[in-house]
Amino acid sequence: MKMKNPPVNRLSLDFLTEFSIGLEKLEIDRVCRGIILTSASPGIFSAGLDITEMVGKSAEHYTAFWRAVQEMWLKLYGSNMVTIAAINGSSPAGGCLLALCSDYRIMADNPAYAIGLNETQLGIVAPFWFKDTMINTVGNRVTEQSLQLGQMYPSPDALKIGLVDQLVPEDKIQSTAAAIMTKWLTVPDHARQLTKSVMRKTTIDKLVKQREADINNFVSFITRDSIQKSLQVYMERLKQKK
Amino acid sequence: MKMKNPPVNRLSLDFLTEFSIGLEKLEIDRVCRGIILTSASPGIFSAGLDITEMVGKSAEHYTAFWRAVQEMWLKLYGSNMVTIAAINGSSPAGGCLLALCSDYRIMADNPAYAIGLNETQLGIVAPFWFKDTMINTVGNRVTEQSLQLGQMYPSPDALKIGLVDQLVPEDKIQSTAAAIMTKWLTVPDHARQLTKSVMRKTTIDKLVKQREADINNFVSFITRDSIQKSLQVYMERLKQKK
Amino acid sequence: MKMKNPPVNRLSLDFLTEFSIGLEKLEIDRVCRGIILTSASPGIFSAGLDITEMVGKSAEHYTAFWRAVQEMWLKLYGSNMVTIAAINGSSPAGGCLLALCSDYRIMADNPAYAIGLNETQLGIVAPFWFKDTMINTVGNRVTEQSLQLGQMYPSPDALKIGLVDQLVPEDKIQSTAAAIMTKWLTVPDHARQLTKSVMRKTTIDKLVKQREADINNFVSFITRDSIQKSLQVYMERLKQKK
Repeated sequence: MKMKNPPVNRLSLDFLTEFSIGLEKLEIDRVCRGIILTSASPGIFSAGLDITEMVGKSAEHYTAFWRAVQEMWLKLYGSNMVTIAAINGSSPAGGCLLALCSDYRIMADNPAYAIGLNETQLGIVAPFWFKDTMINTVGNRVTEQSLQLGQMYPSPDALKIGLVDQLVPEDKIQSTAAAIMTKWLTVPDHARQLTKSVMRKTTIDKLVKQREADINNFVSFITRDSIQKSLQVYMERLKQKK
Repeated sequence: MKMKNPPVNRLSLDFLTEFSIGLEKLEIDRVCRGIILTSASPGIFSAGLDITEMVGKSAEHYTAFWRAVQEMWLKLYGSNMVTIAAINGSSPAGGCLLALCSDYRIMADNPAYAIGLNETQLGIVAPFWFKDTMINTVGNRVTEQSLQLGQMYPSPDALKIGLVDQLVPEDKIQSTAAAIMTKWLTVPDHARQLTKSVMRKTTIDKLVKQREADINNFVSFITRDSIQKSLQVYMERLKQKK
Repeated sequence: MKMKNPPVNRLSLDFLTEFSIGLEKLEIDRVCRGIILTSASPGIFSAGLDITEMVGKSAEHYTAFWRAVQEMWLKLYGSNMVTIAAINGSSPAGGCLLALCSDYRIMADNPAYAIGLNETQLGIVAPFWFKDTMINTVGNRVTEQSLQLGQMYPSPDALKIGLVDQLVPEDKIQSTAAAIMTKWLTVPDHARQLTKSVMRKTTIDKLVKQREADINNFVSFITRDSIQKSLQVYMERLKQKK
C-alpha cells in the first residue's frame, strides 16, 4: 500500500477517506493478510495532517475532517492484518501516528529523516488517542517529554527510544519489510488477530466511547482565534520556504 | 518449593490444584516468609499448561481446568510471601507465567534455555491477565510483539528485554536465589506486603471481577472444532518428537 | 524556587503549606512560566516527609498533615509551569516525590547522593499516587521492585533506570537547569500546558476522586501501635546519628 498524495503525502480529508475505504476493502479481502505501508515519495513518509483542512474552514468541515482522522486511526490501529511501516523518509505528527499504528516499524537509516509527534511546536495539541498510541509504543515518560517539547527524532534516536524497531539502508527497506512480513505471516492468523485485539482493545474502546466529545473538543479548539492565527503564521512560513 | 511433575512439570489439573493448596498452606504458615520456585527436572522449568487437559474433554472439565489455572495465578501473583523464580530450564507459556508472577527472576545462563508466552504458535491466545502480567514486567510494546509472534527468548535475550532479572551459571542458581531471598527478607514484612498489594491490586481485581466471563470465554474458544483440530495436530507432533 | 527548611528540607506541615501557597502565587503570576526546584542546603535536596509530624500526634493533626502532602503533589504534578528539579543532594521518599513531579530532573553527578522512594525501609508504605507518579517515570517493573525493597539509587544508577534525566557536575547544576528551562520555554505555552494536562490528568483525577478515603487510610495506618513504635525506633536512631 503506497501512499500517493504528492508532494508530501499530506493527510487531507480526501486522502484520509480513500485511505480508510482502501483499508476496509483489504480487510474484507481474505487473500490479503498483511500490508506494508510506505511512501511513493521517498524522503517523506507522510507530512501528517493537512493544515489547510484546519484553517479558515467551517465547523462542519472541521467535524468531517476530524471524524476522518479518527476513522483512519480506528481502522489502522484495529486492523486484523499484519501492518508494517516502511518509513522511507521523515514522518512528523500524523505521519508518525500512521507508523505508530503499525505492528512493526522499519526506518531508513538516514539521520536526515526524523519522526515524532511534534504538534506542540505548531501550537496545537496531540489528542489523547495519539498520546495513548505513543505510550503503548515507547512508554509514558518518553511520551510525556516528547509531546511537551514536540520533539522530532532523527532515525538513530528514534531507534534508541523504541519509536521504530529497526533501521536499514534506504535501498533495503522494501526487501526487509517483505522479509519481516513473511515471518509474521507464519503465525496462525486467528490466534495472532485475537492477540492483537486483546492488546489494543482498551485503547481503541476509549476513543469509540468518546468519539463525539473528541470531535467537539477538536472543533472548539481549532476555531479559536488564537489557534487560527498561529496556524496561519505557520502556513505562511511553509509557503515562504518553498 | 520444587515443582515435581515428571518429566516436564506440565501444569495439569491435579498439579495446579496441589500447587494452589500447597501455596495456601505456606501463606498461612507464619514461619514461611518467602518461597523459591524451581524445577526438580533441570533443563525444563515448566512446560506450561498441560495440553492433554484441553483436548477431547467435556465443557465441565475445561471449566474446572481453567478455574484451577486462574486460582494458581491469583494465589501466586497475589502472594504475601517473597516469591523468587529460579528458572533452571526452558519455560514456555504457562511456565513463563509462573516466573512472571514472582517478585524476582533468576535464570540459568544457558542460551539453550528459552522463555516466553508462545501461545499463538500453538494457535491459541494468552488471556488478558497473562498479557497484563507480562506488560507489568516488560512493558506494552515488547509484550505486544512477543504475544503476536508467540516469541520464545533464549536466556540472554530474556535478560535484555527484562523478562528475567539476572542470569547466573547453572550451578549457582540455587545459592543466588537464597542470597537474593535473604536480601528481600530484611525489608519489614508488613510494609513490603502492603506495597506489593498496592502494586498488583488493579491487575488482580480485573480478573476477580471477570472470572466467570473469562472461564466462559476459554471454554467457548477451546471447544471450537478448529482449535481442537490444531491442538490435536500439535500433540501428534509432540509425540513424534519423543 | 529554593527550598529552605534547614537543615535538610524536611517536608513539615508548615513547609508544605508555604510551598503550596508559594506555588499557587507563581501559577497565577503570568510573568512566571517555569520554576527550578533546588535546595539551599547542597548535599540534601529534601529529606522527605517530616517524621515528627507522624509520631505521637492527634488524628486531626495527621489529617491536616496528609491533606497538605496531597495538596503539594496536586499543585506540583498538575502545575502549568515548566518544572525542573535541580537535585543537588540526596533525595529520599517525599524528596524523591518532589523530583518525580517535575518535568525534567537534573542530578549532581556524585555517587554519594542517592534518590528513591524508600518508605518500606521505615516500615511504612508509599500510597498509590506516589506509586503512580513513579510508574509514569520509570515504568511498572522498576517501580515494583524499588518500592518493595525501598531502594535508594546512587545518582549513576538513578540515571540508568530513568529516575533522573541527566547527571552534571555539581557546580554546573544551576546553569544546566537554566539552559534546559530556556529550551522548554521556546515551546508555545498554551499547547505545552494542554499537552501536560492530557498526560497527567488520569493520574491526578484518581487522587482527587479518592482524596478523603486516602486521608482516612493514612490516618488509620499511622495510628496503629506497631507503626508508631517502629517510627519511634527510627527517630531514636536518627537522633543518635547526630
